[in-house]
Amino acid sequence: MLRYPTDHAGLEILPFDRCLQLLATVPVGRMSFFADGEIVVLPVNHVMDGPNPVFRTARGSKLSAAEGQNLVAFEADEYDQRTQSGWSVLVNGSAEAIYEEAEIRRLAQFGLRPWVTAVDRPFWIRIRPTSISGRQTPGHS
Amino acid sequence: MLRYPTDHAGLEILPFDRCLQLLATVPVGRMSFFADGEIVVLPVNHVMDGPNPVFRTARGSKLSAAEGQNLVAFEADEYDQRTQSGWSVLVNGSAEAIYEEAEIRRLAQFGLRPWVTAVDRPFWIRIRPTSISGRQTPGHS
Repeated sequence: MLRYPTDHAGLEILPFDRCLQLLATVPVGRMSFFADGEIVVLPVNHVMDGPNPVFRTARGSKLSAAEGQNLVAFEADEYDQRTQSGWSVLVNGSAEAIYEEAEIRRLAQFGLRPWVTAVDRPFWIRIRPTSISGRQTPGHS
Repeated sequence: MLRYPTDHAGLEILPFDRCLQLLATVPVGRMSFFADGEIVVLPVNHVMDGPNPVFRTARGSKLSAAEGQNLVAFEADEYDQRTQSGWSVLVNGSAEAIYEEAEIRRLAQFGLRPWVTAVDRPFWIRIRPTSISGRQTPGHS
């Protein structure tokens, strides 16, 4: 049974609110950006701050993309191989490094802890969406 | 215990062979490309044909990217929230639509079945890597 209208590929088009909800249900998403002439896609463990995916990082290409206020995408998905079903949400927008102390203190209360602790991840990055869209396989609950 | 050397972020750098192996262990990866000025990241269910991720699609942006021989990325990952560990592999390269009958017959034997069947996915797309790289959290097995 379909819950939502479908697109050209037969996938159900998720409403905006549902997209935001789903983004918060998974601990890992993927940030995608352009660097050195190639498309980069890197997993990050994130939290949602309203409509903004937020995560921590070490110095590196994600931080450079954020400091350049680059166009980025953030994707999250979940699938079940057994039922061959799943959803995905795509956020397009810009990334920005967060340097305000008060803002970092506020975000620190979200309990976001980097999975890899051997190297410090002192930098916080926020993705500000310009668009959010999502799809699910038909009948996925 | 570390298995492989680590990068600036403390992640272990996976050898090429291991990257190829891992790409074949998951049923879903994500194709990323540039379209209409935005970065698109879309899940696809794929199989590996040697070093080439291959998947089927309906007419749409993935096919357009392939027909334009665009630069694309293909990413796959897996994580375990409980142990906060995981791996990811990033393929950079170009996408191409496959139209040769003999080639499609050969690929059809791989048993790749689209998860969404309401709409036909008659087009096959192959990603030809120019680079493949992978990372895992320290000690991930």
